[in-house]
Amino acid sequence: MQRFLILLILTLLSFGMTGQSESTDQDAFFLKDIYTQSLSKSKAYHWLDTLCRTAGPRLSGSQASYDGLAYLEAVLSDMAFDTIFHVDCMVPRWHRGSHTLDLEHKGKAIPTRSTMLGNSLGTGGSLVTGDIIEVLELDSLAGMADQLKDKVVFFNRPMDPSLVRTFHAYGRAVDQRVFGPSRAGKYGAKAVIVRSMASQIDTIPHTGVTVYEEDAIAKIPGIAISTYDAEVLSDYLDNGSVQATISSTSTPLPDTSSYSIVAEIKGSEYPDEIILVGGHIDSWDIGQGAHDDGAGCVQSIQVIETLLALDYKPKRTIRCVLFINEENGLNGGKSYAEYSNANGEYHLAAIESDAGGFTPRGFSCTADEAVFIDKLRNLKTFEPLLEPYDLYLKKGGAGADINPLKSQNGLLIGLNPDSQRYFDYHHTAEDKIEHVHPRELLLGGAAMTSLVYLIDQHGL
Amino acid sequence: MQRFLILLILTLLSFGMTGQSESTDQDAFFLKDIYTQSLSKSKAYHWLDTLCRTAGPRLSGSQASYDGLAYLEAVLSDMAFDTIFHVDCMVPRWHRGSHTLDLEHKGKAIPTRSTMLGNSLGTGGSLVTGDIIEVLELDSLAGMADQLKDKVVFFNRPMDPSLVRTFHAYGRAVDQRVFGPSRAGKYGAKAVIVRSMASQIDTIPHTGVTVYEEDAIAKIPGIAISTYDAEVLSDYLDNGSVQATISSTSTPLPDTSSYSIVAEIKGSEYPDEIILVGGHIDSWDIGQGAHDDGAGCVQSIQVIETLLALDYKPKRTIRCVLFINEENGLNGGKSYAEYSNANGEYHLAAIESDAGGFTPRGFSCTADEAVFIDKLRNLKTFEPLLEPYDLYLKKGGAGADINPLKSQNGLLIGLNPDSQRYFDYHHTAEDKIEHVHPRELLLGGAAMTSLVYLIDQHGL
Repeated sequence: MQRFLILLILTLLSFGMTGQSESTDQDAFFLKDIYTQSLSKSKAYHWLDTLCRTAGPRLSGSQASYDGLAYLEAVLSDMAFDTIFHVDCMVPRWHRGSHTLDLEHKGKAIPTRSTMLGNSLGTGGSLVTGDIIEVLELDSLAGMADQLKDKVVFFNRPMDPSLVRTFHAYGRAVDQRVFGPSRAGKYGAKAVIVRSMASQIDTIPHTGVTVYEEDAIAKIPGIAISTYDAEVLSDYLDNGSVQATISSTSTPLPDTSSYSIVAEIKGSEYPDEIILVGGHIDSWDIGQGAHDDGAGCVQSIQVIETLLALDYKPKRTIRCVLFINEENGLNGGKSYAEYSNANGEYHLAAIESDAGGFTPRGFSCTADEAVFIDKLRNLKTFEPLLEPYDLYLKKGGAGADINPLKSQNGLLIGLNPDSQRYFDYHHTAEDKIEHVHPRELLLGGAAMTSLVYLIDQHGL
Repeated sequence: MQRFLILLILTLLSFGMTGQSESTDQDAFFLKDIYTQSLSKSKAYHWLDTLCRTAGPRLSGSQASYDGLAYLEAVLSDMAFDTIFHVDCMVPRWHRGSHTLDLEHKGKAIPTRSTMLGNSLGTGGSLVTGDIIEVLELDSLAGMADQLKDKVVFFNRPMDPSLVRTFHAYGRAVDQRVFGPSRAGKYGAKAVIVRSMASQIDTIPHTGVTVYEEDAIAKIPGIAISTYDAEVLSDYLDNGSVQATISSTSTPLPDTSSYSIVAEIKGSEYPDEIILVGGHIDSWDIGQGAHDDGAGCVQSIQVIETLLALDYKPKRTIRCVLFINEENGLNGGKSYAEYSNANGEYHLAAIESDAGGFTPRGFSCTADEAVFIDKLRNLKTFEPLLEPYDLYLKKGGAGADINPLKSQNGLLIGLNPDSQRYFDYHHTAEDKIEHVHPRELLLGGAAMTSLVYLIDQHGL
């Protein structure tokens, strides 16, 4: 017995902190298994393909959005969840209808590729005509107030190509689309044309939400034109006046009820600590919502698929949440947080994938405040395990749908895929399955699975 | 700007020591300038487009290879280099000719998409017929010696999809293509069919070099079929015999003379310390050699374009080298090292881009040996400056063309682009300009420029 005790002590000494190095080995092996399972056997790309082809674009409240919800709920129902339930909410609806945009310079037509901004009011189908005036900043409007009446305001500030991360460039340009119609309407403009939010010069127009602020005097229509057409239009304006004639039958429809889907595996040791993975199932009404955000939905399901395939029994409660209405209201994210708060829940971590199905570069966490510092430090201890998979952990944004959970003081985490191609497709008719690379998609899901596993094993 | 100021403050805080932080400030500003210049103004994508469209596929010794050399030399000649010169070498030549591959199972034709392996001998145009036998490992051949005579050996080991970095999977599968015909020929096989080196199941055949070893008894033809066709063929073989009938007019041609291009800016303080950037201008004879390796050539020129545009005067000698004959001989890389050694030169660092024009993930260095440890440690001090651009520095491979410089004991560095899509195009008819994303290409060149600048400023 004594000999055995000495042996035991020697063994413990030789390992240093025995528990830790053993668990690190186990972790490394398990992460390898996650990647092998994900890249060899996951059905996530197949699910996305089916979602894109059979449901298609899934604007909140549209039939396609319910078709998409039903399809992915059926996928989830085939898995060994403890519970699957809905969190209901009301969602706004919007009808794109049809539109025309005719530009004329000295009697010559200038062809453009355009799309109505999401939530924009139309013209009731009648023609609206005005001379175009080019503006680069919302803040410039006040100083040009006397020039804007009856004009069509053309917001033409490009996304800054010199910023490496394209979301930064998007963040600095998107005010034109979101608030352009609302602000220009105050000065008597008849309509707004916006340069598309795209990283490159191309011929694809990008929709996306515009918001009529509460103090908006006139709710004028907003139309996006492609970046190429924006360059051409700007050149024409340098040489004289351009007249725009617009008609549109775009119109809001009454709100309707919809829901987010929650699928849960109860934790065996810490069931009250929830780890959430999610994406949003709604999309804009053109394209197929493949990168934005069908990808995030199927990657979130892939997390569960992978853990179940590896026969993993989570210590903490793991939830896969498919949010509705991220694009034009965020009512899915808000109602989920309300539901969760009302039930006194605690999300230890929430991971959203809503930046496209491209090769993952790492994760970013909203961890500026003191309450998150310990959690971020603990998260950083996972970095050596993620290094073989070329994944970083940084401060930064997480995700719109999980942001309402912030008051629970868990860690909010966003998957950061490579962003270079995102704004080639984002909110366009080209956001289709053929632009999603299967391996890139699966790697994102594998990265999320790895982080869920590590948080589940070690806490934060 | 705000983001940059925050970065600056963080950098200052993290360094503490004033002298060091001053140079770090300058460095951070200059790196920002490099990215702004590269992403806003570089002509690198335009050069690649012209190279691909006007020269096209550039197998060593072909007219297209000379056209490509002439075009990029003209691009270089418009820049303020101190010297531009050639390093001559002999290169092998090979004529693909035409080929047919017919597969038949129980009287039924099995359609396949195929391409001759590079350097393969043909059949002199006559028909060669044999039953197919599937083999997964070169090492299995010896144990099956009595079954191989007069057969067509089908090497069908896939690239392992579970490996995150596709080059690792390529490295573990490519022996089948390189040595398959040579080894199977020893056992009396009539020909070899190889599963294409691709990361995915698709219908695109991949060429690439095969090598007849010195002790090869019979130099039998080698043909690659697409991964999809390999799966189908394997299924048929599970259900009975499949007969292959092959004809090919592939043939080697006499060696001819060619050259690599060297363009140099002399250093002002340490002219004897050379920092090289390079890629290889030759490509396989199908596709356009866009990713492999037109991308590396134009990125190397982009380094110089950017430094000159920023009016940068290098302390060390900077060379842009466009190597010939990487694909089937490496005579460009070998002759350059011979030239350099004969002149007693010293390459402090050599950076090659030969892994595609995709978003850069970082750099890898061949730094296993003691002589490199100090240099790698010094290189690692640049990491905080590269962090805002999401670039890592790791140990790993550098590049085939620069490898012969190893005896000079400088640091050999490879640009590591994201590898997920590389083996969709590598050595195929699809390696075309339309699959190169302009921003991804330019980011690679900007990363190389940043590293050249830091090494030039601080040494290693």
